[in-house]
Amino acid sequence: MSKILLSKMATRAPKGLSKEETKEKTSKILDQLSELQNLMYAENQHALLIIIQGMDGSGKDGLIKDVFTSMNPQGINVKSWKAPTPDEAAHDFLWRIHHHTPTKGMIQIHNRSHYEDVIITRVHRWINAQTASERFAAINHFESLLSNANTTILKFYLHISHTEQLERLNERMSAPEKMWKYNENDLKESALWDTYMKYYNEAFQKCNQIPWHIIPSDQNWYKNYIVAKTILDTLINFKMKFPGLKK
Amino acid sequence: MSKILLSKMATRAPKGLSKEETKEKTSKILDQLSELQNLMYAENQHALLIIIQGMDGSGKDGLIKDVFTSMNPQGINVKSWKAPTPDEAAHDFLWRIHHHTPTKGMIQIHNRSHYEDVIITRVHRWINAQTASERFAAINHFESLLSNANTTILKFYLHISHTEQLERLNERMSAPEKMWKYNENDLKESALWDTYMKYYNEAFQKCNQIPWHIIPSDQNWYKNYIVAKTILDTLINFKMKFPGLKK
Repeated sequence: MSKILLSKMATRAPKGLSKEETKEKTSKILDQLSELQNLMYAENQHALLIIIQGMDGSGKDGLIKDVFTSMNPQGINVKSWKAPTPDEAAHDFLWRIHHHTPTKGMIQIHNRSHYEDVIITRVHRWINAQTASERFAAINHFESLLSNANTTILKFYLHISHTEQLERLNERMSAPEKMWKYNENDLKESALWDTYMKYYNEAFQKCNQIPWHIIPSDQNWYKNYIVAKTILDTLINFKMKFPGLKK
Repeated sequence: MSKILLSKMATRAPKGLSKEETKEKTSKILDQLSELQNLMYAENQHALLIIIQGMDGSGKDGLIKDVFTSMNPQGINVKSWKAPTPDEAAHDFLWRIHHHTPTKGMIQIHNRSHYEDVIITRVHRWINAQTASERFAAINHFESLLSNANTTILKFYLHISHTEQLERLNERMSAPEKMWKYNENDLKESALWDTYMKYYNEAFQKCNQIPWHIIPSDQNWYKNYIVAKTILDTLINFKMKFPGLKK
């Protein structure tokens, strides 16, 4: 299992990479994704679960808008996870997640995920190391269960620098079309950056059987490209074809 | 309440209308819809429920692909209704529907709907006229309940001719990329065309408080245009604006 240490990993595109050329490539990939999604829905054999994690301002919502808007909404669902409701909190932490896993033919996006239950909960000391350890094991078993039922899981961490985050949070307070995203807790959480990184690192070490993709995300054009390309490669690898007439 | 009689209503675009110009207009409307959906999600005040009904082959799936693919999947959900599961059938007919109504900020599409419970059920005599009458009343009350909670309901019937339907069903049996849509019951149901029209007419008469939009659908380019334009007018009429910073 490869060791993930976020502080050593790039948050930006490789130097010299052309923004314009990369955006053109992304645009072509999105056309291919649209075709492949149609085929996936028709074939009705594979399910795809896409998990998107990242700090506030890392561009999770933007990624969904930029990469998945080219897809037919009939074949894709997005679930944005918030703090558990009382009913959800009265169950184990995977109960509400399990309910939103994809059926065959479908793409399911989780905007945040069950990984919050081993990260924000550690940062704020709502759970201890022993509980975290049990949860890591539970997550691995859960993800195996899904994989064995032909659900492919892609896990993306949108990796930004703390400096970039602070710029984006400031923008939320000043740009009229972004103010609705501002939350008064954003800056308090941002101050806990190093603690978050510590627990992200730990979660990635413990739950990397199905590997995490660490996406350099300071530049949206590069983030979009890498995520779109990763999904494209995954769908091509399904080697799908249109089924014939049902018997 | 205006009388709807499907046999007297157009299934094609007005003569002389330019297909190319109409497609260009639709393309511009889709760009506007994408912007307005983003605003609707941010404003978080309005909910929109879009009901799509139509005979097999009337282009419900195609409409969703062509008109809604330009939208951010985070703000839209599609629910395709099939025959009720045993659990669903053990409740009243609106129970499963109610669960899939949109929250504020969201667009919810119902591909088929609770109207199946007063149409296919009549055609096959699974319910009698008395039960149908009770259901019409229940539907009207249900739709009022949603409207009063700031959910706007758009009801579209995709109106095709029987000849056009038969051509499309034939295509499903021969075109490799369409075979997956073929169902062996399609032709049996198609033979009941006149009975379906009778019960559609009745349902439209009885449940037109929130009006039905009868969409001429023999030509997909015209169907897409009219539906997109109707949604655009609805969203413009919401007179939305970006909210300021939360207090």
